[in-house]
Amino acid sequence: MDLLKQRIRSEGRVIGTDILKVDSFLNHQVDPVLMQKIGQEFASLFADQGITKVVTIESSGIAPALLTGLYLNVPVIFAKKTESRNLDTETYHAAVHSFTRGGEYIIRVSKRYLTADDTVLFIDDFLARGRALLGLLEIAEQAGARVAGAGVVIEKGFQDGGSLIRNMGIRVESLAIIKAMSEEGTKISFDEQTN
Amino acid sequence: MDLLKQRIRSEGRVIGTDILKVDSFLNHQVDPVLMQKIGQEFASLFADQGITKVVTIESSGIAPALLTGLYLNVPVIFAKKTESRNLDTETYHAAVHSFTRGGEYIIRVSKRYLTADDTVLFIDDFLARGRALLGLLEIAEQAGARVAGAGVVIEKGFQDGGSLIRNMGIRVESLAIIKAMSEEGTKISFDEQTN
Repeated sequence: MDLLKQRIRSEGRVIGTDILKVDSFLNHQVDPVLMQKIGQEFASLFADQGITKVVTIESSGIAPALLTGLYLNVPVIFAKKTESRNLDTETYHAAVHSFTRGGEYIIRVSKRYLTADDTVLFIDDFLARGRALLGLLEIAEQAGARVAGAGVVIEKGFQDGGSLIRNMGIRVESLAIIKAMSEEGTKISFDEQTN
Repeated sequence: MDLLKQRIRSEGRVIGTDILKVDSFLNHQVDPVLMQKIGQEFASLFADQGITKVVTIESSGIAPALLTGLYLNVPVIFAKKTESRNLDTETYHAAVHSFTRGGEYIIRVSKRYLTADDTVLFIDDFLARGRALLGLLEIAEQAGARVAGAGVVIEKGFQDGGSLIRNMGIRVESLAIIKAMSEEGTKISFDEQTN
């Protein structure tokens, strides 16, 4: 997606060798018009898959997931990361290892909203080591739901998450795949085979 | 907003005297079409206010805020609740007391994205005791930004947050104000003066 790659090139900030900050349009400040185009793109890529639910993880996945759900005309579920007394006690849950924060967190989806009748599309902002998607796959398996695939806004192609998930037979569509990046002068190069 | 009140009546679940669960369309599973209508409504209510940024708190505020930002054609900022090594160190921050979880949490907004040139509209899913809005007001004050007001999806009119914030001279537009609710038979009554 050229528009996205342009925004990453002009606004992305590389820190060290593996952190890409895009918090001017995706992770902290969000550009709703860009999210709309991203949602339309994912909806178009998975239009013929009979998707009944879009599933993401709070918080940064919510914006692209919401607009994908809008254009697929299906509900969006955001898996919760924290225990809240407002969440149902009957949940599917999975442990996710976070390389960014260190340690593990638990994601939860209420059993009310995901069943064996569902076909799900996962949406997330980043794909790096793939651990968040593995957690979502575990939740879909617990629910007995069919997985149509995953839509990822930015994939770090130099990390192993993409091949890990694709080797499981899961369709992954990434709108921008970063081949390499460097802090020096914020150089970012893309795999040009992406949408 | 009649459509919203209908959804609260048909899907809301009351627990005890003060918890209203609307996680089938707002807090966990989200209905993107309803969020679109909510975004259009807030955008229309605040259309003439020269808003430059919509500001909310992760996670449940993101969906209505994103679509409000889309129809106002301005960026949306979600204040972060957790420290992440991906967030700028230069932040505005405020402590928010949570009655739902007990204890305090810190909300943060990067100084990059909010300045004295901004006019902000706050969007949140719930207004109960008003502590989240107080935190956002503190952040706007630190930035020197003008506050156009707050758009709230569901206000618990039987709690003191609405009067607290309005008495500070802040315009608050709530799409549904609950006058009273009861667990028994899930009775919910609305203040009919709302939009």
